[in-house]
Amino acid sequence: MMMTIGRKFHFNAAHRLHNPHWDDERNRQVFGKCNNPNYHGHNYELIVNLTGEIDPLTGYVMDLKTLKEIVEREVIERLDHQNLNLDVEEFKGLNPTAENIAWIIYRLLLPQIDTNKKIAIILYETERNYVEYSGG
Amino acid sequence: MMMTIGRKFHFNAAHRLHNPHWDDERNRQVFGKCNNPNYHGHNYELIVNLTGEIDPLTGYVMDLKTLKEIVEREVIERLDHQNLNLDVEEFKGLNPTAENIAWIIYRLLLPQIDTNKKIAIILYETERNYVEYSGG
Amino acid sequence: MMMTIGRKFHFNAAHRLHNPHWDDERNRQVFGKCNNPNYHGHNYELIVNLTGEIDPLTGYVMDLKTLKEIVEREVIERLDHQNLNLDVEEFKGLNPTAENIAWIIYRLLLPQIDTNKKIAIILYETERNYVEYSGG
Amino acid sequence: MMMTIGRKFHFNAAHRLHNPHWDDERNRQVFGKCNNPNYHGHNYELIVNLTGEIDPLTGYVMDLKTLKEIVEREVIERLDHQNLNLDVEEFKGLNPTAENIAWIIYRLLLPQIDTNKKIAIILYETERNYVEYSGG
Amino acid sequence: MMMTIGRKFHFNAAHRLHNPHWDDERNRQVFGKCNNPNYHGHNYELIVNLTGEIDPLTGYVMDLKTLKEIVEREVIERLDHQNLNLDVEEFKGLNPTAENIAWIIYRLLLPQIDTNKKIAIILYETERNYVEYSGG
Amino acid sequence: MMMTIGRKFHFNAAHRLHNPHWDDERNRQVFGKCNNPNYHGHNYELIVNLTGEIDPLTGYVMDLKTLKEIVEREVIERLDHQNLNLDVEEFKGLNPTAENIAWIIYRLLLPQIDTNKKIAIILYETERNYVEYSGG
Repeated sequence: MMMTIGRKFHFNAAHRLHNPHWDDERNRQVFGKCNNPNYHGHNYELIVNLTGEIDPLTGYVMDLKTLKEIVEREVIERLDHQNLNLDVEEFKGLNPTAENIAWIIYRLLLPQIDTNKKIAIILYETERNYVEYSGG
Repeated sequence: MMMTIGRKFHFNAAHRLHNPHWDDERNRQVFGKCNNPNYHGHNYELIVNLTGEIDPLTGYVMDLKTLKEIVEREVIERLDHQNLNLDVEEFKGLNPTAENIAWIIYRLLLPQIDTNKKIAIILYETERNYVEYSGG
Repeated sequence: MMMTIGRKFHFNAAHRLHNPHWDDERNRQVFGKCNNPNYHGHNYELIVNLTGEIDPLTGYVMDLKTLKEIVEREVIERLDHQNLNLDVEEFKGLNPTAENIAWIIYRLLLPQIDTNKKIAIILYETERNYVEYSGG
Repeated sequence: MMMTIGRKFHFNAAHRLHNPHWDDERNRQVFGKCNNPNYHGHNYELIVNLTGEIDPLTGYVMDLKTLKEIVEREVIERLDHQNLNLDVEEFKGLNPTAENIAWIIYRLLLPQIDTNKKIAIILYETERNYVEYSGG
Repeated sequence: MMMTIGRKFHFNAAHRLHNPHWDDERNRQVFGKCNNPNYHGHNYELIVNLTGEIDPLTGYVMDLKTLKEIVEREVIERLDHQNLNLDVEEFKGLNPTAENIAWIIYRLLLPQIDTNKKIAIILYETERNYVEYSGG
Repeated sequence: MMMTIGRKFHFNAAHRLHNPHWDDERNRQVFGKCNNPNYHGHNYELIVNLTGEIDPLTGYVMDLKTLKEIVEREVIERLDHQNLNLDVEEFKGLNPTAENIAWIIYRLLLPQIDTNKKIAIILYETERNYVEYSGG
């Protein structure tokens, strides 16, 4: 019996979209205002989904307290109130689009979660645009 | 042509998380404040999804009035403004976690819905945590 | 590596649910207040999902500016502030239920999106009811 | 001790903005797409606020069941799934802007509520625009 | 220059509406399902507003970290995951309606906040009903 | 007859809280993670309220198209996708707290709005904290 649980988290960060292999004009053309060299920022809303069996002793797929500790330690402490381009190792050489942020979050969580649970990441960059990634 | 329809419902309930095979200390350790013997409570937001063919006469997968009558009769009247542990037969011997509540709701609806429609249950226990169950 | 992106849009429209092959009494019985011959209306919230590979040059599955231009030109300009029954060619002979509106939106977008991306449509007719369609 | 209580309601309606003393061109210029002669529509979210003393016997400013019955009878049944211009007496000769709808709702409720309670109306026409009216 | 700041908090609790001076029948008549002797519960959303001058050194009316510590210590720790009727001293002899809970929260915060700031409490009992209290 | 209208807007920006008259240690102590020298950012949700008389010719307090043009020209174009500390003249020498941003927005709009209308600004910095300012 497979059940999915979801938990929402928030973090705020500054970022800039930029491809260092392109000149300034092409960067402005492709990324528009998101290319501002002084950065802009977002309130990111992160949903972490886990799909697995219910533990008959607890009635939980996973204790949300444990999930919360993992996500706060591995993701929120690394990204919250940071400049993604300057302060976060994982984005040296990787453009911090919502797609790439979701992929990095997935990779940060993967070694922390039992392999019998499937992870999915939903990341809202604004109230109106989001990405979903579940590996594969 | 398979289409999914979703309808939101609400109910309020008291509950307590507890495993009767464990002593009080272990229950407090695992379930924390959710183990309060005097109960706490939630506003549950329930989304019922049905996936099936569109009826060419109505343009509906299922008339939402009919779905609403079924869910209110089978689920809302049983759970709304109740103490899940004390007042609801289905949780005698079953810990009322969000996972188990979603599973019970699925089982209450299954015999009421045409077998050519697939049911999925999404249940928010708070604005920040939810579960999804679609059988299997 | 398959990633899903989602973008929300809004439009307002009037409509009436009606099957011209039925008499007035049966229409009122099946569609209730939604059969009002003078029409009623909704704020529709539309979510367009695309699933595809991340472009390594941009870090995007698709530039949201491009997606926005396509959806506004093909969908929003056709449906926003319109009477779906009277003003929109696609609903001549098709009952404008949420299911059928989602199907029409899918068909309007399909020829505009690269075939290596999978489209899904989520359409909220009210805050409490919605439909999802992803072809097939 | 003055306390305010608020209760949310929903209704859907079609309408058209139009000043019959102006010609078609001026109407289109002022009201834009909202002047569509075939109507468009909205999901209106209505919040009714009452400010008054707490009844020491109940702990209520007013029983929400009673408020709900009054608002549903006086407002929702009159406006829900209607064409405001054609079906609702109060908008014969009154342009159904959000401002005027809020004013009409206030006037419909005023004779039904004890004079020791102050009424305020908040009406969302879309998620992004709303009006507030509290008499005076 | 008077500015208002607002901060949202959440707590979950069980409660029962009951007037001990009335017999069971009258209690059921007035409070309906909220009178269930086994309790029901809610996710309460609490907004604390403070109105005061901006401190020119910080640009803050009040540091939200300080406000958060006060509200969590004085309100959330007392009410969260509790049975309001059984576990909370302030509701011995006071019916835990939303109105009375807001009044108690106001009184718990009043001695903790500088007297040059005006407090207002907004409390959502469900997504659809709320109360506001600002003293006086 | 005084009526209030409200319209929501969004902008994204980077900022850093910092008092240049304090040393680094005191800045970190007071502003915590918000003092990050590389900036962080937010999705700001802005609500502009106007209170005035209804124009009997239009049924509007003010045409929302006109209000939208003014707010986008005077506020959104200046703040959206900017670094408030580096890119926005008004925050040279003013700490960009939510309180000060709301005050600046009020001052930017004041000369653009008829003096017979009262302006109020509501600004959400995150989903959980906001400020309100209405002059005075």
